[in-house]
Amino acid sequence: MAAFNARGFLVGLIGAGIGTSLSPALHEHQADALKLRYTYRILDLDVLGVPATAVGDVLAAVRLAGFDGVNVTHPVKQLIIEHLDAVSPDAAAIGAVNAVVFVDGRAVGHNTDLPGFVRALTTGIPDVTLNRVVVLGAGGAGAAVAHGLLSLGAGTVSVFDTDARRSDALVESLSIRFGERRAATGPITDLADAIRDADGLTHATPTGMEGHPGLPLPVEVLRPGLWVADVVYRPLDTELIVAARARGCQVLDGSRMTVFQAAESFRLFTAVEPDAERMLRQFNELVHTSPGRRSAHVRQ
Amino acid sequence: MAAFNARGFLVGLIGAGIGTSLSPALHEHQADALKLRYTYRILDLDVLGVPATAVGDVLAAVRLAGFDGVNVTHPVKQLIIEHLDAVSPDAAAIGAVNAVVFVDGRAVGHNTDLPGFVRALTTGIPDVTLNRVVVLGAGGAGAAVAHGLLSLGAGTVSVFDTDARRSDALVESLSIRFGERRAATGPITDLADAIRDADGLTHATPTGMEGHPGLPLPVEVLRPGLWVADVVYRPLDTELIVAARARGCQVLDGSRMTVFQAAESFRLFTAVEPDAERMLRQFNELVHTSPGRRSAHVRQ
Repeated sequence: MAAFNARGFLVGLIGAGIGTSLSPALHEHQADALKLRYTYRILDLDVLGVPATAVGDVLAAVRLAGFDGVNVTHPVKQLIIEHLDAVSPDAAAIGAVNAVVFVDGRAVGHNTDLPGFVRALTTGIPDVTLNRVVVLGAGGAGAAVAHGLLSLGAGTVSVFDTDARRSDALVESLSIRFGERRAATGPITDLADAIRDADGLTHATPTGMEGHPGLPLPVEVLRPGLWVADVVYRPLDTELIVAARARGCQVLDGSRMTVFQAAESFRLFTAVEPDAERMLRQFNELVHTSPGRRSAHVRQ
Repeated sequence: MAAFNARGFLVGLIGAGIGTSLSPALHEHQADALKLRYTYRILDLDVLGVPATAVGDVLAAVRLAGFDGVNVTHPVKQLIIEHLDAVSPDAAAIGAVNAVVFVDGRAVGHNTDLPGFVRALTTGIPDVTLNRVVVLGAGGAGAAVAHGLLSLGAGTVSVFDTDARRSDALVESLSIRFGERRAATGPITDLADAIRDADGLTHATPTGMEGHPGLPLPVEVLRPGLWVADVVYRPLDTELIVAARARGCQVLDGSRMTVFQAAESFRLFTAVEPDAERMLRQFNELVHTSPGRRSAHVRQ
C-alpha cells in the first residue's frame, strides 16, 4: 500500500437519476490497479433534492470541498457551462461538457465523449470506410460523434434529427470547424436514402434504450457492407444492433464509447494514462455478471 | 484490491493553518491496512480564503459533496456547533466539537479528545494514581482532559487558568456532570501549592508549543512521584516533558492523545475499529523520519 500516492484523487459524477452508475466501479478499480488513492462519488441531483438549475451550487460545493474534478451527465451537460472558467475547444464546439477539471483554482470543462467515440470506432471496427457516414441524432452524443468522425478524416457526415433546428445547428458548427461540404443535413424523411448511399451509420438518439424500445429506422435499410454503431449502452444489444448484426452489418455497440470516455476522464483527472483495455474487460464483466446491471447508467 | 469496499469513505479536516497536518497520512495509512477505500482531505480556511465564521458554508459544502464526516480544529471547534443537527453528550459538556459525522442526513458533533486522552493515559502511564489531579488550562483541550479524568474515576480535579472565567465555567460543567466536590479551582497563584498536594498534573495550555517556548510552571514543583502529562504535541519533547523527566516524574507526551483521538475519529467515520497501536507506531515513524515534521500539526 505504500505506493499509494500521498494526496490521492477525489472526483465524482453530477447528474440526475445516476444512482446505479457503474462509473465509480470503473474508475476506482482502474485506480486500484495503478495503486492510486481514488474516490469517485455519486452526486445525484434527485437525491440531493435540488433542481438541475442548481448545478452551479453543487459545482461550487465540490470545488470548495477539494475535488480534483467531476464528470457531468444528463441533464446538466449544457447547464454547467456558464459556471466554468474555461471550456476546451472540443467541448465548446459540441456545446456540451461531461468532465470538469479543477486546476490552479480554475474549473475547466472538457468533452470526453468525442475522444471516447473516436477510440471506440478505431479499435472496435478499425477497418471500416468513412467516406460517407450518417449520424442519426443531433443532441450532445450526436454532436460528439459527428465532430469525432470529421476529426478522424471522414469524408462527409450527414446529420439527421427529428428536430431540424438541432441538425441545422450541428451542421453549422461542423462546417465552421471542418470546412464547408463536410457536413450536410436534410429532412428526416431523406434518412433511408442517405443510409442507402452511406458507408456507415451512427445512431445517437434515445431509441433502443430501456424505456424507449424500438428501432430508430426501417430495418430494410440495413444491408451487408453498411457498418452500424450505436451510442446506446443500456442495453448493449439494442434492437438496432441485433437487427444490424442479423442483416450482416459490422456493428459497434455502446460499450467501447462508454468505457473510453471514462478512461479519458480518468486521464484528465489524474494526468495518469489508464489501461483502457483493462477497463473494457472489467466493464464487460460488470454488465454481464451483475444482476440488473445490464441497464446500469454507466455513461457515466 | 478487490477487498476495497465499494463506496469507500470520504472525510477531511476543517481548520486554519493546517497544511502540514499529519492526519491525512495517519487516517489513510490505517485505512489502507484495513483495505478500506478512504480519502482524507485538508480544508484549510486560510487556503480557501474564508474567515472562521464561514465554517457553516464549508460544512454545507462538504455535506453536499457527500463527505462521510470531517474533523474540526482550531479556530472552529466552538463555531461549528451552531451548524450541527446534534451534539454528543461529551461534546456538549466540553463545549467543543472536533469530529462531525454525517449520518442519515444529519450532522452530528463529537469530541474525540476526551476518549483520546483517556486511552492515552490508561495505556501510556497505566499505573498512576488519580486521587488528586491538577489540570492547567481550561480551554477546549483542558476541558476534554478534565472530563476524561473524572469519567475515569479520578477523585478530584483542580483546574487552573490565567482566565478565571474559563476555569470557573469548566468547574461548573464538571460539577453538573460528576457531582459537587469532584472539581475545584482557585487563583492561578495557588497552582504550585495544588501541584504539591497532587498525584498528577496535566498541562493543556499552548506553552511549550513551537512559537510559544517556555515552561508553564516553576520547575521546582516537579518532583518524583508526580506524574506529568502534556497535551502539546509539537514538539513532543516540550520543555515541560523534558524537565519533568529529568526530575524523576513519570511522563506522558502528546503523541498518544493525538493518535488516539484520530483513531476514535476514524471509528466514528467508518464504524470500523482501527488498530490504534499501529497508528501510534506509524505516527512515531512520521514525526521522527520526516524532516521538519516534528512540528507537524497533527491534532488534527
